[in-house]
Parts: sequence; structure tokens; C-alpha cells
Amino acid sequence: MKRIAVDMDEVLADALTEHLIRYNRDHDEAITKGHLHGKWLWDIVSADRHARLEGYLRSEDFFEDLPVLEDSQEVLAKLVKHYEIFIATAAMEFPNSFGPKYRWLRRHFPFIPPMNFVFCGDKSILLADYLIDDSHRHFERFKGQGLLFSAPHNAKVTGFRRVAGWKEIENFFLPVGRA
Amino acid sequence: MKRIAVDMDEVLADALTEHLIRYNRDHDEAITKGHLHGKWLWDIVSADRHARLEGYLRSEDFFEDLPVLEDSQEVLAKLVKHYEIFIATAAMEFPNSFGPKYRWLRRHFPFIPPMNFVFCGDKSILLADYLIDDSHRHFERFKGQGLLFSAPHNAKVTGFRRVAGWKEIENFFLPVGRA
Repeated sequence: MKRIAVDMDEVLADALTEHLIRYNRDHDEAITKGHLHGKWLWDIVSADRHARLEGYLRSEDFFEDLPVLEDSQEVLAKLVKHYEIFIATAAMEFPNSFGPKYRWLRRHFPFIPPMNFVFCGDKSILLADYLIDDSHRHFERFKGQGLLFSAPHNAKVTGFRRVAGWKEIENFFLPVGRA
Repeated sequence: MKRIAVDMDEVLADALTEHLIRYNRDHDEAITKGHLHGKWLWDIVSADRHARLEGYLRSEDFFEDLPVLEDSQEVLAKLVKHYEIFIATAAMEFPNSFGPKYRWLRRHFPFIPPMNFVFCGDKSILLADYLIDDSHRHFERFKGQGLLFSAPHNAKVTGFRRVAGWKEIENFFLPVGRA
């Protein structure tokens, strides 16, 4: 059985929407995902507010109630029948996120056993055939095939097989007639 | 640079000593490591107390102040100069342990970057050349070489390269004249 490692933020969990809500609310701004084509939020927010941006991610409750990305539950529920699925999230930058991330995964993806959760930093430690991730930096030392999950910040990144959403992932891994 | 994945409990952190202290204190017993030759604590404690044994591991503070295993800091501080060191701990069974384990590693092994911490369940996800672990079950699907770190519970396990302590690990990875 082939193994797929799946990133969490911006692939399963819509952390960006929550980040925008908090930033806009506190700064009376109206930044949307549309403003972030090819950019990180850090690129368009003035440097004196970067500590604040980071602070949101470090807060206890940030990762607790993130929206689930469209079709991710339905497609992963199909994929688990044909592939070994691991969820691999770079949680070490934000130790406060451990508990919330664990609870979020149990709540929204109860069909994936916790034994298949990986909270890590450097994803080159992962032994998998595929890695679905919105950050192409994780593909540099990854031994399997990287699939770049489209997100505003990576809109201009080239050189990787790209998937625009979970329906595309379904077509990639479960071509019609196989599911 | 070759990569070594290092387990945490019973390899870096002496969880067993803490477990015995708590159990003996609450049950007026005097079980020592000597009683556990080839056995888990679960094997010698009556079944009606198993939930209690498990409860200790689930408590918020269990993993916060564990003793550090002898020579582990000194030897790892040498190994990081010659090998890529990852700490890989099966934390998913005890979600309350995430924070304490992270803080413990930062406090006692400040020279290992958090990006190299892996909190996981199924260790077959690890891509490493070596895995030092006291549980041989993790070697079954591990692609590199397993090194069985001696602990009371594995005293009778055979069939694996065994290391009795950190000085032996030093000799294995840094033969005299190399360090």
C-alpha cells in the first residue's frame, strides 16, 4: 500500500482565513485572499506589525476552530481505503498548537488513527511515497513525490506538480473506475 | 551526513522511575526496576489497577520533570557534530504529554533544534539510517537499522543489535579516534 503524507495548514485546515479575520478585526483592514496572490501575509503587512501576526499563531486558541478545506474530508475518507494516510504538520514552531491540532484532527478526521499523526518540523524525516503540501520548501529533501497544494502564497511557484484542490487530488490518486 | 532517530522515553527520559514512584506511593508497594526483568509494569500489577497505571501517564505533569538517562546529554552533544539527530517519540497515545515533552527536550537538550523533534505514533514514518529505541516493535517496519536500548521490559528480547547505555552508543557511532 502506497503511503501519502498530508500537510495540515492550508491543505486540511484553513488557517489563512482565521489569520485574516483576526488581523483585519484588530487593525480595521479588509485584506482578502485575493490580495495575497504570490505573497505571504507577512509580505503585505508592514514590518512593525509582524510580531502581531506571529502572535496570532502563538495564541492558545488559534488552531482550535479552523474551517475545514472543501472536499478534504470526503476525499480522504475514500483515500484511506487505498492508501496509507499520515497527517504531517510542522507544529514545532508553535508548541501551543499541539493540543488544538490534535483535537481538530480527531474532530474532523475521526477515520484517521492518531498513530498516523506526525507533529514535526523538518519534513525530510518523513518516509512516504507522496507529500501533499502548500510549502514547496518541504519538497527539497523529501524522497517521494511532492504535490504542491495551491494556496495564495504559492501562486507563482513553478516546477512542481500542482493540485488545486481535493477533487484534483481524488482524480490523481483514484482515477475514475478505481474508487 | 547519516541520520539517527532517537526515542525519548526510557532512552533519554527515565519515565519508568517516575512511574514506579507514583505507583508505589499510592499503593504502598516497593516495586523496583529489578522486579521488571523481561516484564512491563502492567505484567506484574493486578488487572484492576491497570487503569490507574495508565492514568499516571495521562496526567498533565507526568512527563514534565523526568530524570535524564545517564550520559545521554554528553553523548548526544558529541553525536550532533557527526550525525543528523532527530528525537522521535510516540506521543500520540498521550496527548497531554505534548507540551511537557517539548519543554523537557528544550530544557535538557538545548543543542537539538525543535525542527528535529518528531511527535508521532507509528514510527515506520521515520526516514533515518538508525533508530535507537527500547521498543523493538518499532523496528518491524523501520527501513534503517534498529538499535535496541536496554530497558527492564526488553531484557529477554533477542534478535536485535542491543545497546546497554549511552557509552555503548558513543562507541558504536564514534569509535575511538573519530570523535
